[in-house]
Amino acid sequence: MKNDELLKEKKISSELIYKGKIIDVYKDKVECPNGHISYRELIRHCKASCILAFNDKGNILLERQYRYPYDEVIYEFPAGKCDAGEDPKDTAVRELEEETGYHANNIEFLGVMYPSCAYTDEVIHLYVAKDLIKTKQHLDENEALMIEEVSLDKLKEMINEGKVVDAKTLCALTYYFCKNNK
Amino acid sequence: MKNDELLKEKKISSELIYKGKIIDVYKDKVECPNGHISYRELIRHCKASCILAFNDKGNILLERQYRYPYDEVIYEFPAGKCDAGEDPKDTAVRELEEETGYHANNIEFLGVMYPSCAYTDEVIHLYVAKDLIKTKQHLDENEALMIEEVSLDKLKEMINEGKVVDAKTLCALTYYFCKNNK
Repeated sequence: MKNDELLKEKKISSELIYKGKIIDVYKDKVECPNGHISYRELIRHCKASCILAFNDKGNILLERQYRYPYDEVIYEFPAGKCDAGEDPKDTAVRELEEETGYHANNIEFLGVMYPSCAYTDEVIHLYVAKDLIKTKQHLDENEALMIEEVSLDKLKEMINEGKVVDAKTLCALTYYFCKNNK
Repeated sequence: MKNDELLKEKKISSELIYKGKIIDVYKDKVECPNGHISYRELIRHCKASCILAFNDKGNILLERQYRYPYDEVIYEFPAGKCDAGEDPKDTAVRELEEETGYHANNIEFLGVMYPSCAYTDEVIHLYVAKDLIKTKQHLDENEALMIEEVSLDKLKEMINEGKVVDAKTLCALTYYFCKNNK
């Protein structure tokens, strides 16, 4: 779109501030559309996948997981980072099985989401999984989580009560609602 | 909940890696629930607000905005960072007016969302705005965006086509769908 060109910023230079384990931090110098020089602080993060999974009772798998930045235990759909070169769909199947002990025989792409577009480049790929087969949970060494299952109606009620605040979880539901007119 | 205590990590120490303009970066040493020592890289970011705004035709206000981390122009609902001490509801009214030139006489809280809970502590407060009065757009000096308006049905179609990927925008819609059974 021609109009979009009028909104773009041009990178002038990029400074690596911190090379971490899960995030790299950069401060880039840019030219704004009005010609002014400005700076953008940003995080580079690998891709990730998140799964809305229905079990054989038609209930949705929810995790309770401690999240350090908030010092809170929150509800989330199963999710995890893509290994280097891994297809996000394979990540979704792998992480679902590792975290919940269910293998998905049916997994469909819902869409992607950009968590916080001003300062991170993370892309989370969202899937819906069905036809689950019980296998075995394989948590990472320092990973701790608990699995619950809830109906879609109960999950909507929990959202209305402010009990589900995780963005990837809410975004997967938006796609699911839009695709299924629910 | 007693079970939640079993999931928590304990902070041992915190190292400031980078004090930036919009983000601060920390590397914290923690004790995991299994007693192991690990590290958490995290971003501290101020609160923000985002607004699902309906105009007098019942259409929704959408912005097209360039987002440097993705080098893309994307669709988003109006949004912005809370000033120090500012109530997120006041931020919502202020940012809607600054970015779109509409003052909202009716603004209701939908819920909050955590953009990427593993590594940022940002909380985005989501609102629905109605009864808009045309006033005047006041963009920040280096801010460039374009306003469009679409019906809710059109927006759902755009989501199904993968044209709307911004998390705060999708999350505001989840809350709206759940509260209104749409």
